[in-house]
Amino acid sequence: MKKLLFTLFASMMALGAWAAHPSLLLTAEGVAEMREARGKVPTFDAAMARTLSGADAALAAEIEVPQPRDGGGGYTHERHKLNYYEMVDCGIAWQVTGQEKYARRVADMLKAYADLYPTLGFHPVTLSKTPGRIFWQTLNESVWLVHTSMAYDCVYDYMTAEERAYVERNLFRPMADFLMNGMEGNRGNNKVFNKMHNHATWATSAVGMIGMAMGDEELVRKALYGSDETGKHGGFIQQLDYLFSPDGYFTEGAYYQRYAIWPFMVFAQCIDHNRPDLKIFEYRDGILLKAVSTLLQLAYDGRFMRFNDALLKGYDAQELVYAVNIAYNADPSNKTLLDVAARYQDWVLPTDAGFAVARDIARGEAEPLTFHSALYRDGRNGDEGGVAVIRSTDPALNSAVSFKATAHGLSHGHYDKLTFAYYDNGNEVLCDYGAARWLNIEAKYKGHYTHENKSFAMQTVAHNTLVVDERSHFDGDYDESMKYHSDIWFTDFSRKGVQIVSAKERHAAPGVAMHRTVAYITTPFLQYPLILDLLRAESAEEHRYDYPMWYGGHLVSLNFPYEKATTTMSALGTANGYQHLWRQAWGHNGESATTTFTWIVGDRFYSLSTATTPATEMVLVESGASDPDFNLRTEKGYIIREQGRKNHTFFSSLETHGTYDLQVEQSANLTSSCEGVRLLVDTPEYTVAVAEYKGGHRVTLCVANASADAKTRHRVETSEGRFEWTGPYDVKMN
Amino acid sequence: MKKLLFTLFASMMALGAWAAHPSLLLTAEGVAEMREARGKVPTFDAAMARTLSGADAALAAEIEVPQPRDGGGGYTHERHKLNYYEMVDCGIAWQVTGQEKYARRVADMLKAYADLYPTLGFHPVTLSKTPGRIFWQTLNESVWLVHTSMAYDCVYDYMTAEERAYVERNLFRPMADFLMNGMEGNRGNNKVFNKMHNHATWATSAVGMIGMAMGDEELVRKALYGSDETGKHGGFIQQLDYLFSPDGYFTEGAYYQRYAIWPFMVFAQCIDHNRPDLKIFEYRDGILLKAVSTLLQLAYDGRFMRFNDALLKGYDAQELVYAVNIAYNADPSNKTLLDVAARYQDWVLPTDAGFAVARDIARGEAEPLTFHSALYRDGRNGDEGGVAVIRSTDPALNSAVSFKATAHGLSHGHYDKLTFAYYDNGNEVLCDYGAARWLNIEAKYKGHYTHENKSFAMQTVAHNTLVVDERSHFDGDYDESMKYHSDIWFTDFSRKGVQIVSAKERHAAPGVAMHRTVAYITTPFLQYPLILDLLRAESAEEHRYDYPMWYGGHLVSLNFPYEKATTTMSALGTANGYQHLWRQAWGHNGESATTTFTWIVGDRFYSLSTATTPATEMVLVESGASDPDFNLRTEKGYIIREQGRKNHTFFSSLETHGTYDLQVEQSANLTSSCEGVRLLVDTPEYTVAVAEYKGGHRVTLCVANASADAKTRHRVETSEGRFEWTGPYDVKMN
Repeated sequence: MKKLLFTLFASMMALGAWAAHPSLLLTAEGVAEMREARGKVPTFDAAMARTLSGADAALAAEIEVPQPRDGGGGYTHERHKLNYYEMVDCGIAWQVTGQEKYARRVADMLKAYADLYPTLGFHPVTLSKTPGRIFWQTLNESVWLVHTSMAYDCVYDYMTAEERAYVERNLFRPMADFLMNGMEGNRGNNKVFNKMHNHATWATSAVGMIGMAMGDEELVRKALYGSDETGKHGGFIQQLDYLFSPDGYFTEGAYYQRYAIWPFMVFAQCIDHNRPDLKIFEYRDGILLKAVSTLLQLAYDGRFMRFNDALLKGYDAQELVYAVNIAYNADPSNKTLLDVAARYQDWVLPTDAGFAVARDIARGEAEPLTFHSALYRDGRNGDEGGVAVIRSTDPALNSAVSFKATAHGLSHGHYDKLTFAYYDNGNEVLCDYGAARWLNIEAKYKGHYTHENKSFAMQTVAHNTLVVDERSHFDGDYDESMKYHSDIWFTDFSRKGVQIVSAKERHAAPGVAMHRTVAYITTPFLQYPLILDLLRAESAEEHRYDYPMWYGGHLVSLNFPYEKATTTMSALGTANGYQHLWRQAWGHNGESATTTFTWIVGDRFYSLSTATTPATEMVLVESGASDPDFNLRTEKGYIIREQGRKNHTFFSSLETHGTYDLQVEQSANLTSSCEGVRLLVDTPEYTVAVAEYKGGHRVTLCVANASADAKTRHRVETSEGRFEWTGPYDVKMN
Repeated sequence: MKKLLFTLFASMMALGAWAAHPSLLLTAEGVAEMREARGKVPTFDAAMARTLSGADAALAAEIEVPQPRDGGGGYTHERHKLNYYEMVDCGIAWQVTGQEKYARRVADMLKAYADLYPTLGFHPVTLSKTPGRIFWQTLNESVWLVHTSMAYDCVYDYMTAEERAYVERNLFRPMADFLMNGMEGNRGNNKVFNKMHNHATWATSAVGMIGMAMGDEELVRKALYGSDETGKHGGFIQQLDYLFSPDGYFTEGAYYQRYAIWPFMVFAQCIDHNRPDLKIFEYRDGILLKAVSTLLQLAYDGRFMRFNDALLKGYDAQELVYAVNIAYNADPSNKTLLDVAARYQDWVLPTDAGFAVARDIARGEAEPLTFHSALYRDGRNGDEGGVAVIRSTDPALNSAVSFKATAHGLSHGHYDKLTFAYYDNGNEVLCDYGAARWLNIEAKYKGHYTHENKSFAMQTVAHNTLVVDERSHFDGDYDESMKYHSDIWFTDFSRKGVQIVSAKERHAAPGVAMHRTVAYITTPFLQYPLILDLLRAESAEEHRYDYPMWYGGHLVSLNFPYEKATTTMSALGTANGYQHLWRQAWGHNGESATTTFTWIVGDRFYSLSTATTPATEMVLVESGASDPDFNLRTEKGYIIREQGRKNHTFFSSLETHGTYDLQVEQSANLTSSCEGVRLLVDTPEYTVAVAEYKGGHRVTLCVANASADAKTRHRVETSEGRFEWTGPYDVKMN
């Protein structure tokens, strides 16, 4: 006990003498406060217990620093990842307990890496354009260094000058140089380092953090202002200018915003501790805190909306623990962050920021996170379209619509202009496939994006939007798609009972102008809010127009006769994603001008009623054809096809209805109330669309197609009377 | 306020004067205790608030007693169900609040039914052999009367003698007579009433309860002892003798045991209140309480195991609230029932039993429900095979194996002798399809079992057991299957690290003797317990043997080259369930004598390694072919096929492995440790099966195929030495 106290004392003295360490995610004051509070802040005690148990588990085994060999999910890959987690745990354990064994472990492991690193060429797995040395891609190497810098910062004062010199010379400086400049045989890292891209955020953060830990001002400058230190051709600060829109939206979408935010927040925390003069959290009108809050809004039930390349991740991802903790530390007035931490995240960082969060949760300061409808503009200047999210005004309804009309979204973007998705009652109702990938599962294409990500998941038909002539938007050409963006025509979330977004896309399908309007309407006569979807295609030439809707749950009924594949089933097409669709069933509706598809998800029913003609073909599909390695998930879609049309407008009523309680075996309202949908007027100037419901109710959506001006008055004469309104749209209900 | 007090007082006086009412699920003492405790027992306050709000909601609308028209899920069906719930709510509300409006509502609705009932012929929906009058099947009519009896009991003293006479004459007596004897045109109800079947339990409970409510001793006698009142040809008491095995197992399986237990427990509660001399809960060694406890054990994570006809239901089903509350009221020493109520059920009954549960939960008396491995014998005398459930001895592992070797299981039984299922980590890993039904969804074959229930869900290939020559057990012939049962060969759950069950089936496939042994083994060298599966087929003739395994989650890898359907896919067969299987992929393993299939479910991996030859064919299938109405769920199966074999033994190692954390992107142990499985000896007398794992480890399973005697010593000489053991099996590990 005496010895322990002495060690603690000696370590605190050391901290006093070298105020500069720790100074990345921990500070000397922070560590003192953590020690003081031990046993008093349960969430933080748990975080610290977790860190100490991680550190102890590490100590229980020999150091393993294997020769790099495997890709994602393989042994050496995972081992090198575990190693940085272990070093961080041990570094923090040393700071908090002052027990030398922890510091020694970090020092010894760093020594082992310093022995190995100079011997390494490029990694043997050749799947990346910028291979790493420890890992198959440089990206993982940056992540390794971000973590290891934290550990080094913690044990810096413990290590002898000789030890530090050895690891800095053999490991940290060569690695920083590698991240900035690559090496003989592949200099691609230099381009990445100075790019406006999330891989560059990792690289600059890694270089900046190890620079701070080593006290190397030059590395810090290069990290902040790019290789040439001008701030004009790369670097962290320029990334803050370029990578987020003014609304804090990251162009790759929520899933990669989650990933991108991690190094941004970690390095910003380090900058805040080391260079408070930069006021990094206030930079660009507080862009980093705005980015965190936008990211939290781009989720449903704590899971990020799945547009573009995306797997199922959410607030519990470790990146979000970093983001939320550090954001709160930067702005403790935002008490909703405590709610996210308390409800979705089962741990806090064992750092100054994590301590602040745990302490203030314990003080009962959390305030509920609320969701609001909003448009998140895309593009550095906010002029490249955007993603709109509509939320139920009554939070108890827990429904959300996402509508994507953005720029392409860099390498993780999909060809899905004007796509939309619907979330309700805790479920994905109209879904986005997200990415075709089995992350970290080596047996699945080494954990990388599978071939089907490009051949299916990115293709237009995998999304709930218009496909022209079975070809994807921009013919799936990345460079072409990167040139353009959709345009928001109008949004309005302020009117009582009506929330609406409208956007146009002029480039995705050559010669075809697309215009989609999605309205979320609360009526007095339907059980749940109604969604009206108006998707217009205008062209001088004849086309085949496909309107796919990917649905969760199970088909209940269709209001037309259909044939279903029984003994053999064929792929629907041969290219552009269609080769991956099994054609389950098909039919025409000769009986009604409104075609209704009803399905069940969870304990609720959904009916999509669309205006059709007897020539319209309906096809039910399932993903999985042309998928030789079982890479695709089995998902189901419903496609409405119009052939040989110049202009065509898909108009649908999406009704949420029904109470289905299996446990008490009670059910009600299981059939749609929709009696018909039709286009009363549909010209280049105006669309007037009518949806009729049981009980003589009717909802009419009027859109001014040629003017989005808020003050212009419109008047349309129809066979059913005159419609008048002001501004780009109107919704009439009776 | 004064008026309220007066009403309360008047009503309590009335109760005092007529001690006989209420006496079904409520008693005068119980009601007094509930009133006394108002505001003091939160769970019960919530139950009562729910009841009162149900009663108030009922009062807010007009009485609707529509002309019967619709099947399950349709308007009139649901309305008549709602009506009995409303009457129960109002009846209890009257008892507890003494407000006349509630009693009046029940009286008025009963009057309306009494007006309607004599005018009714059979229900217009003709899907049932025993159609009802208010509902499409008599079963629902029994359920209606069970509930309505409770309501009538509550308001009996409130109604005038004339009112009572009218409803008894026009409604209750004719309905009781209908349930017992049917009517002109269909007398099928008489057979049902006296049958040993759960429909009879509803019918006898209904008749007995309305008899008690009306004070009609004859009806009560017929309910207890059958139409002829002898107790030898039907009735509730005989059902207690016949419908449960000595282990409290109901032959139709857990899903229908859930349903069957409801009227058993409700009527038993009424008997206990009205005829305490019968000591109903002690009858047959406490068979009813044993049945409740067996039912609770036949669940995984609160959901009933899905063998035979079954949907996803669990402890939160309303029947279980009745069963658990009433069982606790009958035996308050079983404190684990409080745990089930508190953790899985969000309400308690607004009755004496529910009050006891709520009160004792509030007193902190709940004790955790624990699970144990057990054999639940089937058959009235426990001699018709049984269902074995193996549980992880460490509850934190949360895994379970079910193994079914029972009699057929009446009309809800499947042709699935010796089938097994595996549950782990909160998921179904090797699954049972359960029933093909969309309960209460009228658009899906009126909510009834769909055609595919018989053509697929009941067929052998839909289960994880042996299919001979693509024909189902007993060729799917119900009468034939009802004649036989499998036999348990041995079970042993007592040995440290090994739990095992072995059973034989001699009749299901003509000329083929089946013998399956499933061992759940904890090894010191594998991450999770191992399952060994030994499925032997012995025949004098050559057969095709199929070994299907239906799996949850997604295929990760196969250790043999396979071809997958890419542009067209065909059904695997034409009959016996095979017509419903899409043939997704197929292949042979020419490279290894052990074929390994790895899949992922949730965040864990599973590898099934089976002994094969280059002639063995593997097929991957998906349900959904020959399903013109989209009735089937999409489920995936893996089939190993041996052709032209007389004797064949399928021997598999099922390894659970891997840590896969998507949120922190860490994974480990994603590939199987199994290096090979093989049969060292396989004769009619002995099977010695060896499974080998990385690190030179090996597990050997020895089974005496011809003697299950516990004391017999066995000795087998093999090319790898001599194996000796005592009793029917041995497991050796090194």
